[in-house]
Amino acid sequence: MKKPTFKTDEQGRIIFGRFEYVLQSLIFLSLVSFAIETLPNISPQLRKSLGRFEMVTVTIFTIEYLLRLFYGKPRLRYAFSFFGLIDLLAIAPFYLSTGLDLRSLRAFRMLRLVRLLKLVRYSAAVQRYHRAFVIAREELVYFGIITLILLYLSAVGIYYFENPVQPKIFASVFHSLWWAICTLSSVGYGDIVPITAGGRVFTFFVLIIGLGVVAVPSGIFASALTQAKETEK
Amino acid sequence: MKKPTFKTDEQGRIIFGRFEYVLQSLIFLSLVSFAIETLPNISPQLRKSLGRFEMVTVTIFTIEYLLRLFYGKPRLRYAFSFFGLIDLLAIAPFYLSTGLDLRSLRAFRMLRLVRLLKLVRYSAAVQRYHRAFVIAREELVYFGIITLILLYLSAVGIYYFENPVQPKIFASVFHSLWWAICTLSSVGYGDIVPITAGGRVFTFFVLIIGLGVVAVPSGIFASALTQAKETEK
Amino acid sequence: MKKPTFKTDEQGRIIFGRFEYVLQSLIFLSLVSFAIETLPNISPQLRKSLGRFEMVTVTIFTIEYLLRLFYGKPRLRYAFSFFGLIDLLAIAPFYLSTGLDLRSLRAFRMLRLVRLLKLVRYSAAVQRYHRAFVIAREELVYFGIITLILLYLSAVGIYYFENPVQPKIFASVFHSLWWAICTLSSVGYGDIVPITAGGRVFTFFVLIIGLGVVAVPSGIFASALTQAKETEK
Amino acid sequence: MKKPTFKTDEQGRIIFGRFEYVLQSLIFLSLVSFAIETLPNISPQLRKSLGRFEMVTVTIFTIEYLLRLFYGKPRLRYAFSFFGLIDLLAIAPFYLSTGLDLRSLRAFRMLRLVRLLKLVRYSAAVQRYHRAFVIAREELVYFGIITLILLYLSAVGIYYFENPVQPKIFASVFHSLWWAICTLSSVGYGDIVPITAGGRVFTFFVLIIGLGVVAVPSGIFASALTQAKETEK
Repeated sequence: MKKPTFKTDEQGRIIFGRFEYVLQSLIFLSLVSFAIETLPNISPQLRKSLGRFEMVTVTIFTIEYLLRLFYGKPRLRYAFSFFGLIDLLAIAPFYLSTGLDLRSLRAFRMLRLVRLLKLVRYSAAVQRYHRAFVIAREELVYFGIITLILLYLSAVGIYYFENPVQPKIFASVFHSLWWAICTLSSVGYGDIVPITAGGRVFTFFVLIIGLGVVAVPSGIFASALTQAKETEK
Repeated sequence: MKKPTFKTDEQGRIIFGRFEYVLQSLIFLSLVSFAIETLPNISPQLRKSLGRFEMVTVTIFTIEYLLRLFYGKPRLRYAFSFFGLIDLLAIAPFYLSTGLDLRSLRAFRMLRLVRLLKLVRYSAAVQRYHRAFVIAREELVYFGIITLILLYLSAVGIYYFENPVQPKIFASVFHSLWWAICTLSSVGYGDIVPITAGGRVFTFFVLIIGLGVVAVPSGIFASALTQAKETEK
Repeated sequence: MKKPTFKTDEQGRIIFGRFEYVLQSLIFLSLVSFAIETLPNISPQLRKSLGRFEMVTVTIFTIEYLLRLFYGKPRLRYAFSFFGLIDLLAIAPFYLSTGLDLRSLRAFRMLRLVRLLKLVRYSAAVQRYHRAFVIAREELVYFGIITLILLYLSAVGIYYFENPVQPKIFASVFHSLWWAICTLSSVGYGDIVPITAGGRVFTFFVLIIGLGVVAVPSGIFASALTQAKETEK
Repeated sequence: MKKPTFKTDEQGRIIFGRFEYVLQSLIFLSLVSFAIETLPNISPQLRKSLGRFEMVTVTIFTIEYLLRLFYGKPRLRYAFSFFGLIDLLAIAPFYLSTGLDLRSLRAFRMLRLVRLLKLVRYSAAVQRYHRAFVIAREELVYFGIITLILLYLSAVGIYYFENPVQPKIFASVFHSLWWAICTLSSVGYGDIVPITAGGRVFTFFVLIIGLGVVAVPSGIFASALTQAKETEK
């Protein structure tokens, strides 16, 4: 019997060619099926079909994993690579859950999401984003720190203004932190809102300073991306 | 009898000169009239006037369509062009609806909106945006995919945090997806809000990562537009 | 008696030197006083004080206006200039309201706000923003049009999805337009929210397309500002 | 006994080497402990532990302060420097509060937050942000003024539209100002929303103009940061 051979990339990973698209579609479908399973009122019949589909996808992913494991170069190296671990985590819960009760199975299943990360491998352009991230890393880290300091100071400030008037809503600095996150991200759910004059004036200053700070990183990253694109040429 | 001749552009489409502005105004007015018709308490008299106005506009658009059809170069080519189909769809519902009952007519009328797309044809600057879009297409596609992955992971994550506490509001991954869309776009209607500590911390991380990701594409497009403008010179 | 002389700029407008800062402060204070007057429960005494302050400011602005009118070069030219008209409108309501009843006076007073525009005159940097605006004008206009089309299409789309389920809230295309404005600006008050699955999926697509479109103009303007700054050197 | 010597930077400030990281961690932990203390239902035991931890941190910060004070070059200069004052303010409340009642102590404790500012000193990259800020200062100031004018005009406008219909919610120009802040920052809590057609159309125009204006400064700052980075090379 002739041993099959596979094309591999420079890191010794198998390239399945057009079949990669089939794998990607399968990952996508298994994610949709996962979401459908969470619907509260689905029929037992549909649940059964989804279970069967799950079995098929896991089988295919297992075959893929074994092929990558034994036919990659050097052999078994894949097992300890980043994507090898992800692929294992994405199929392991299925095998481990047999014999366990349904609930724990459900918790394990969440790991099935890790399959999503496999999508990332297939795109070449991810490299550019990685480079852009490296270029902008320092700035992003410092802006991250400044944002955290700002969130903390905003939370403490609003706590002192609003806690005496709304002791249930602004119950602690942690509750205020939730307000600070919602406000500085400009999401503003409206579940926790300052009502004192002082708290509103404080919010004004927080927004004036904060929105600027929060918006800068995306500008930094966009310019880093332009830089990363230029170095390609 | 002398056959009329029309100026045509390089693609053989008739250019009506200043009359094009009349057509644009008519499109605009027919859209306003469409919106007024949806008002719940309008008088029968107004409804009648709007119907009459509709008849006039459709007549004019029909004449325009026929002229474009028979006097474009080469003849009838217009019928199979993109805008030819749009123009047909924009007037067809009016003729098809006669004899049908009012409700179905209303559904057909929605197609009248397609007229709006005709506005696009008349502007030359659209070309630049098209070029900018071509330049940035690859980035926009990848950022689109990353955004979708982020939305999915956010939805699954918040589902596990909030579903046990708010089973009616975070009823499934699809409900959570609505939350993820509202939150990552920073719209934050406030109809579906995390209340657990875990869910709020998770929201914080989703926002930290997500707002950056969501904001990058517009930066990419703006820089692509600058590039597109420079190539014009 | 010696006729007083004033320094004038190249357009023949009087420059008051350091006194200009006094005038600006006075404009600011009159705006604050205007806001205080709208407070529902202010004491009659405070209202009286505010009225007296109003009288003082109007007197000073009147003197300023007359000086500008008679000592500008050429004489009286100021009366027909842009800021001359604004200055007149900013003081006229005070004189016109005497003899009229209080309510109409209040409506007239709103014109007092025009004084705010006087602030603009005093800043030299406004010129740069004006130049940046001229550079980016074309783009801003086209993006304005695209935004309007997007708002309209979003409003009609959500109307068809939500009107049958929420006939009171999404009562007409105009009500839906309010939703579209709140959503695409990512303000999201939460007073009008889609609840159908179709409406939510539609909202998703509207946001994906819309947030990009809405965010581009500010990027365009920022780059125009950089350009405008460079031309200064 | 040999007098200890410390490495100092070019401004004569002591550099503690790796111990600086310990100090930073301690600042971070004292901030977390401060937040935990505000939780409404913590056990007396935990409160006691937090108090003890507070004592330890204050002791360490006091030693640090004294070392900086006596071994910095020239001696005692640190006492009147910016960070010297911050360090003093960050530890002073602890000593001053002994003998005072608990509530006032709590208010004093807020000053403990000033410690946070010490974090800033330890990062070298802050210099770049400072330079970027200097570059963009003029623009940021003018855009700040334009934003304030816009907020004021928006508040007065919406007041005239909504006050007659919602006299309790849009009670004065100051209440409207809160609406203007929430809307132009696109936070949109939804606690104060226009309901008249006029108010909504006005909101539309405010958003069209306002969102652009509000978004420009972050673009300006991002480009200034790029400039500041280039001057480093």
